[in-house]
Amino acid sequence: MEKKSGTAFKEADYLELSNYLPFWGQLTAGERETLKGAAVRRTLKRGTVLHYGKEDCVGLFIVRSGQLRAFILSEEGREITLYRLFEQEICLFSASCMLPDIHFEITIEAEQDTNLWVIPTEAYRRVMEESAAVANYTNQLMATRFSEVMWLVDQILFKSVDTRLAAFLLEERSIQGGDELVLTHEKIARHLGTAREVVSRMLKYFQTEGLVVLSRGEIRIQDAEHLRKRAEQ
Amino acid sequence: MEKKSGTAFKEADYLELSNYLPFWGQLTAGERETLKGAAVRRTLKRGTVLHYGKEDCVGLFIVRSGQLRAFILSEEGREITLYRLFEQEICLFSASCMLPDIHFEITIEAEQDTNLWVIPTEAYRRVMEESAAVANYTNQLMATRFSEVMWLVDQILFKSVDTRLAAFLLEERSIQGGDELVLTHEKIARHLGTAREVVSRMLKYFQTEGLVVLSRGEIRIQDAEHLRKRAEQ
Repeated sequence: MEKKSGTAFKEADYLELSNYLPFWGQLTAGERETLKGAAVRRTLKRGTVLHYGKEDCVGLFIVRSGQLRAFILSEEGREITLYRLFEQEICLFSASCMLPDIHFEITIEAEQDTNLWVIPTEAYRRVMEESAAVANYTNQLMATRFSEVMWLVDQILFKSVDTRLAAFLLEERSIQGGDELVLTHEKIARHLGTAREVVSRMLKYFQTEGLVVLSRGEIRIQDAEHLRKRAEQ
Repeated sequence: MEKKSGTAFKEADYLELSNYLPFWGQLTAGERETLKGAAVRRTLKRGTVLHYGKEDCVGLFIVRSGQLRAFILSEEGREITLYRLFEQEICLFSASCMLPDIHFEITIEAEQDTNLWVIPTEAYRRVMEESAAVANYTNQLMATRFSEVMWLVDQILFKSVDTRLAAFLLEERSIQGGDELVLTHEKIARHLGTAREVVSRMLKYFQTEGLVVLSRGEIRIQDAEHLRKRAEQ
């Protein structure tokens, strides 16, 4: 992680920070000073691993620009994507040591060059302990991530690979902003928590159905509407 | 669900209630009155379904005696146990409508005859919105359940069936309080989210290894120590 920028923050910076935090209006002057005094900005190069389990409990991250991915890792190095965080979204698990009842480890990496506000764990915890607004907001954040993980559980347990693959391709399409997806089968397999062979087989099946066209390192979405129907099965 | 008991509560009842809620000492007199005025006791027969998704958002449950099971249900009726709640434990998801960011449905059933305190959703929400102590406690509850679900995700994704089956048998042993487990293969399969045939095959394998002895509707644990080693693989 890069060093704190040497330049002092201006009021405009704090105004930006306060806009990300919906509870700002309900804080006392002292609580605002605590957060303002602690918050720093960071720039992360694409590929940087931000938080590896509990070893690195930096603080709450607020994404200013770029993209983060949260995933879990098996002992053998298999990865499962839990969720992604985009502009203006807040990462709670980079401050998970704040929550003593969280007993799992999530890894967070920058999928793009990413610029963040970081509110160090200790400052956030201090404000959360006295402010019902902050504690309730933190609750909301956790509920949102919990829901995303439960969606994943549902996908894994109850949905077949074709449904999950179709949903994944549509998600990538909206992230990448077009029908030409730069994606290897290996990468898709890691995202879905399945084997590369399974993904390749299913993609070929999708190609024969006219849903996608495959070429080296790239997948072109041919029929988004039918893909959507499959994703909703 | 049974009707509210007609008898008025005494101070001793409220003392018991306050003992279940670690934030009681940090509440204002008004907040305590809100909770005391709203709390009711319920008795549930074994097998009663307490909360089916969002249709039935009764309130926070505190288990006085008995046992609850929280599970998710696929469209085809497949069940996966998420966690169980025992005496003195608190069920947050029976009040999940309080948390607008929870977008999944959990079913809760009484696995034993169960006696509960119920704090209706609206009263709890009102107190939580103004009390940082209650909001932070709710956070803790959610973090605990989140951790249990993440443990399950880990089991499903990364552990093989034998490891999960061994862990499940040991858990049942501590719940049932002995080596003789009354359990059908069908029931185990539902708990593990796998097929009955897979469970039967693995149990037979465990039997040949001297870990268990099988008979109709019953599994006897023969070698708990080796079972534990397998569960920890």
